[in-house]
Parts: sequence; C-alpha cells; structure tokens
Amino acid sequence: MSGNVVIQTDFGVSDGAVSAMYGVAISVEPALRLFDLTHDIPQYNIWEASYRLYQTLPYWPEETVFISVVDPGVGTSRRSVVARTVDHQYIVTPDNGTLTHIKKAIGIEEARVIDEKINRLPRSGESYTFHGRDVYAYTGARLASGVISFEQVGPPVDVDDIIGLAKPEPFMENGVIYGNIDILDVRFGNLWTNISKALVQEAEIAYGDSLEVTIANNRQHVYKNMMTYGHSFADSRLGDPLLYVNSLDNLGVAINQGSFAKAYNIETGADWQIIIRKVPKD
Amino acid sequence: MSGNVVIQTDFGVSDGAVSAMYGVAISVEPALRLFDLTHDIPQYNIWEASYRLYQTLPYWPEETVFISVVDPGVGTSRRSVVARTVDHQYIVTPDNGTLTHIKKAIGIEEARVIDEKINRLPRSGESYTFHGRDVYAYTGARLASGVISFEQVGPPVDVDDIIGLAKPEPFMENGVIYGNIDILDVRFGNLWTNISKALVQEAEIAYGDSLEVTIANNRQHVYKNMMTYGHSFADSRLGDPLLYVNSLDNLGVAINQGSFAKAYNIETGADWQIIIRKVPKD
Amino acid sequence: MSGNVVIQTDFGVSDGAVSAMYGVAISVEPALRLFDLTHDIPQYNIWEASYRLYQTLPYWPEETVFISVVDPGVGTSRRSVVARTVDHQYIVTPDNGTLTHIKKAIGIEEARVIDEKINRLPRSGESYTFHGRDVYAYTGARLASGVISFEQVGPPVDVDDIIGLAKPEPFMENGVIYGNIDILDVRFGNLWTNISKALVQEAEIAYGDSLEVTIANNRQHVYKNMMTYGHSFADSRLGDPLLYVNSLDNLGVAINQGSFAKAYNIETGADWQIIIRKVPKD
Repeated sequence: MSGNVVIQTDFGVSDGAVSAMYGVAISVEPALRLFDLTHDIPQYNIWEASYRLYQTLPYWPEETVFISVVDPGVGTSRRSVVARTVDHQYIVTPDNGTLTHIKKAIGIEEARVIDEKINRLPRSGESYTFHGRDVYAYTGARLASGVISFEQVGPPVDVDDIIGLAKPEPFMENGVIYGNIDILDVRFGNLWTNISKALVQEAEIAYGDSLEVTIANNRQHVYKNMMTYGHSFADSRLGDPLLYVNSLDNLGVAINQGSFAKAYNIETGADWQIIIRKVPKD
Repeated sequence: MSGNVVIQTDFGVSDGAVSAMYGVAISVEPALRLFDLTHDIPQYNIWEASYRLYQTLPYWPEETVFISVVDPGVGTSRRSVVARTVDHQYIVTPDNGTLTHIKKAIGIEEARVIDEKINRLPRSGESYTFHGRDVYAYTGARLASGVISFEQVGPPVDVDDIIGLAKPEPFMENGVIYGNIDILDVRFGNLWTNISKALVQEAEIAYGDSLEVTIANNRQHVYKNMMTYGHSFADSRLGDPLLYVNSLDNLGVAINQGSFAKAYNIETGADWQIIIRKVPKD
Repeated sequence: MSGNVVIQTDFGVSDGAVSAMYGVAISVEPALRLFDLTHDIPQYNIWEASYRLYQTLPYWPEETVFISVVDPGVGTSRRSVVARTVDHQYIVTPDNGTLTHIKKAIGIEEARVIDEKINRLPRSGESYTFHGRDVYAYTGARLASGVISFEQVGPPVDVDDIIGLAKPEPFMENGVIYGNIDILDVRFGNLWTNISKALVQEAEIAYGDSLEVTIANNRQHVYKNMMTYGHSFADSRLGDPLLYVNSLDNLGVAINQGSFAKAYNIETGADWQIIIRKVPKD
C-alpha cells in the first residue's frame, strides 16, 4: 500500500474531532502520511461529498486510501464499506450515496462491508456516535498501512448494490445541450456543470462562439442571456459572464472576477438545469 | 520521543502565524510529524483550549508533544510550562488554566517551567508578542525530537501549583442529576455535558427512557421539556430532541439533524446548568 | 533540496482544489513534506499574498520551496516564474506582484520562467483554468524533490524585470514618523505598519512614551489620539489602545483584547497612512 490517507468529513476543524481521527490513524502506524480533502462539506450533504471525491481522486497515486465521513445515518443499519476503484484506490465510507460519482464516472472494481466486530478501535467504548474515529479512521489506517488486507475488511458486496443517488445525464437534442449545475466552485462562485467538453465539441461549438445560456430551477427560468465560450478568463473583460472548460474538463459558468452563483442565486443539484443553444451567425 | 507534534492555537489560519510555527519546528528537526488540533479556539478562551486537549489526547500515541497557545497574558509574568501526563504525553502551554481538564480528568505526573534563557528561538529578537513561535513551537519541537530532554526544559514546578479554572462537578441527589454544559459540538450544535455515562447508569436511566431536561443559565430556566435517552440519533425522528452518549462517553443533547444550541441560544460554562429528572412511568 | 513544500493560495479549503494540488505533488514524490501557508488570501489580493510570504519565509529552512497561487490573470500571457532568494529558498508563482516584498525586503538572487512545454502535468488536458494544480504544484514538487534542477525550470529572467507592486517606504521628518498600514493581524484586528523598530529608535521613542497617532485614508483623518508605546500588551489595561513591536519587528497598533481595525474601520494598503508624533513632556 502507498501509506497515503486522505480524509474528508463534514465535521469542520473547529473542535477536536478531526484531530482525534488523525490520532487514531497515527496510533495504528506512525509512518502513515495523512492529508485532508476537505472538512467543510455542508452538513449531511452526501452529493457534495461524492462530487469532491470524484474531483480529487484522479490526482492522487494508486493505492491511496480515502476516508469520507458524511453520515446522517450514523447509528442506523446503513452499511460501512470499503470500495476499490478500477484505478486501485480505496474509499472507506458509509454506503449512503457517497460513492455515486466514483461508481458512475470512475468505476468500482470490488467492494467489501466493514466487519465492525474486528475493525473497530478496541477501547472505543459504548459511543455509537463517532464512527468516523472508531471505525472509519481506524479501518482506513489499518488498510493503508497493510495491517489488514482488503480481504480482511469484511465480506464482499455486489458492486451493483452500492447505493447511488439520482444523477441526471447531460444530452444533446437538435444541437441544443441540456445539462445540470452539479456543484459550485465555492470560493469563486463559478457554476460547474455536468456537460463535458466532448459534448460541447459534438455540438460544434468553438472558442469565441456566442451562446444563449438558460438556467432553470425546476423548469422555472432564473437566468437567460448570451455569453461567449472563452478559452480562458483572460478572453473576457472584468465583470463579463463566460462559459469555459473547468479543471475537470467540464463546462463552467463564471463572471470574470465576480460570483455568478451569488449574482443570480444559483444553487446545485438535479433540479438545477442549464440549457446551451448555439445562436446562428447571420 | 515519538516525533509527533500536535498544535492548537486561537490564531486562525488566515495569516502566516501558524505556518511560521511550523517552519520553526521543521527547522529544529525536518523529520518531525506536525499536526493540527485546531486553530479556531475562540480568542482567549482558555476553557475551550483546555477542553479540546482533554477531548483529543487519549487518541494520540504516548510521547506525543502537544503545543497549545491561547495566551491572553502574553508579555505578563505568567509562566510557560511543559506538563507530562500520567499517559506520558507532553503539553507545552502558558500556565493560565489551559491544563484544567488534563490535570483533573487525566492527571499530570510532572511539570517544568520553560527556562526562556535557553529555550527560545535564537534570532527571535525583541518581539514580546509571539511566544507561540519563539518559545512554544521552538521548545515543543526540541522536546519532541530529543534535542532537549524533559529535564532540560527548566526547573520542576509543583503539580498542585498548575493553574486550574473553576470546574463544577456533576452530582446526583434524590435520583436527579445536576451537571453543566461544558462545551458545544460546534459544527452540529449539540451540547456536551459533564455528566458521565456512569452517573446516568447510577441513576438507573436506560435507553428508551423519557426524561425531563431542564437547562438554566445562572438558575434562570431557558429550556424545560421531555426528551428520550436514545442509543443513537437513529432512534429519534428528524427534528426530535434527544439525549445520547457522546464520543467522550458523556451525555450530549441534540436535535436530530438540527442545532440545539442555536434553537435555544445555549452557551457553555460554569453558569450553564443542566438538570435531568427521570419521570416515573404510570 | 530540503523536500519541504509550503503552499499558499486564495482557493479556500472548502472544495477539492488544494487537495488536488497535494495529490499532484505526492504523485511526483511520496517523500515530500507538504505544508500550508494559508489558503485564505482574499481573492485576487496579490499584495496580501506577497506580504504573507515575507512574513513566513524567514522561519523555514533553506531550500524550502514555496508555491503561491493568487492569480487573477490565469490564462493571460502573464509569466510563471520560480525565484531563488538570497537565503536559498524558492518561490513558484505567477509573476504578477506576488514577489513584491520578497524582492525588496529579502532579496531575489536569480529567477527563471517556467517552460510549460516540459513543466506541466502530463495528463492535464485542455483546461486553462487550473495552473495551480497543473503547473505550479507540479513544478514545485519536481523542484523540491530534485526531479528537475533550478536550471531545468526554464530560461533565466532579469531579476529587475520581476514585477513589483508600488510599495511606499516609511520615513522620518522633523522627528515625526510617516508610514503605512501594510496589513492586518486578521484574527485579532491589530494593524501592522511598515515602520521598523529601528526607525522608532531613531526617533528616540522609548517604551512607556505617550505618542500622538494619526491614521488617514487618502489624507483624510480617520483616527487621531494618544496612545502608549508598550513593551507588551500586558503594559496596558483591557480595552486600551497601544503601540507595540510585532512579531516582524515592525510597529503594530492594537486594542488590548479588542479589534482596532473593526473599532475604526481601518483597511490596508498604500492609501492608508499612519503618522506618529512624539509629544514633548512638560
């Protein structure tokens, strides 16, 4: 194993919860290299947890172990699993939809249910509220350091049974592209869509084209205007809206040095649709 | 020594202060493993600094060196100390009450005053305002890496003289439990009390019992209602209040997927009392 | 090389951007030691990025590689450079003013333009929006781990051509000191000026002196009052304003346990002037 562990939670870092998880992992094996994905996932937002994994995994080495704890169902009978991707990375997580994007867009090769009778911090007592520390950090650290093998996590589960959230797919019809606002580039207020650069090319849209962009919440229009498909932000003036290819090779919507999301109160998810129409040149 | 250093401050991470502390430690010994407890302790809140140490220490290995810098008295004659716990961990801190919980709930075996004539960053000049970097990070790193021994920190001090803040103890009277709201689970808005699971069992309270919970600020009631003592959050419906055992085996108060603290404007400390009364079944 | 990499951005840590940079670096060389300076630089605030490097570099070892990505011009023809300081540290950054303080106050020995034909993450595709990950993290990690030498970064550039922002210098006239509010100690609300302790001594100001402090925004007075030049915060009462020497040996302005910046709405930069006048004792 690589010895790399990357942790994501919705705990924030204002109290000792994340540090306790680190301590558990370091107690398993001091030589582990521990990193953060983010601890600012909005509380209980499984969709965003899933997306952040999808956004980040490709840039880490093989055999990296990811631990993701966004777990509104802690204490219920929801399963805890470890998934191995087709790229030989591991994700330790509650099976609650956190693997949605990984399963669809990257691919899960094999998955196992964590057997908590053996994979649980020995002195973790009677608390049923902190599986992040007692089960996930402990199991992830033991797997990443080779104390247990993938097989020793627990019995295998059918990959088809891994829970996925509804994830609408973008499509093109009569040259018009229909997609969704998947997530925000939080800090800069840009919208990230699920429309790939390949689909844009299929629609024969080229850099510099002027496009009609409609954004709708549950089919109700909240934005409809023209903008340019730019090679980079530098192709537009300060304050201009633009379409661009983001760091995941998907289409993004931005205001150059402004916040598109704040300007038009845009949110994310299956209800937020974006429609892109090429305007014929006269 | 373990080579693990865990740092806590009230500095935030928006400027270069914490990174300068890291740089000082890495300059002492590049092989040190540096970690954060949190840097979001509310400014000058010694009680919370003390609590976060108590919450986190048990999950780190022996010989881990903790550095805690919440120091309203920087520049005064308050002492800087290193405490060794009964579990052979070290805390480098101003002696201003930061060791309150460690001393009472874990136990300090020995303590020494930092002799700043020898244990101070050589080129640290005339600034008297950044002991976090010049004294605490420097001394903690030298101790964790074995450059100095515990004895070389400075002269011993009587553990009884280590400053402790007032810390009310929970008690039971006629089957009613009286305790305090010690701290918040910041991100989720749950209340963490100082009432241990053992005391709850002594009161013959069992999972599923319905309990009358009163919360008072300086004896003025701010909440009084019934709630269930649940095995986990899953035992209650969304939005229901519940009593549960938190990750420190103490009693917590929550609203399932809501914020109890925000809902009723609850704060923490010696003035915030909680009273738990078992309601006889008819 | 030291193997130490310190990263600064304006990305925040709420999404996966910083973690992707970490992953790229770890993929180059797992043994690298990665650290954060801060990721909370206000968006596109090049001045503050420059100042935070200046504040932090002196506390890190020789050969540390700093990566700073505050880059309003991503996608323009602005150059990407690596600068080597006189203290043998490296900064990987867009050449947009981020090196202002380093160049003036520390000194740049040599600089090279990053040749993106060879120094760019191989599979980084067509996105022109995430140079932080694809160019800066990748190049910084390869330099820090010795995969490339400084010479292999790209062709040398004249240090005089490295872009510097306007940076007014403090001066003394007739015993009165004129300076600027350079930056805030964000968390505590203290003002950090560009007036060095040496200049204060030249003006024959001693600890305990009472001084008239004027703060002006574009020559318009926003504060004018007396305060004491204190050895440390402990020399003043709670709530009292004071002048003190900060952790960079420059003059700071504070309210003891309050926020001077919030109290008087003080901001930072070349337009914000501070004038310090010694009041003759009767």
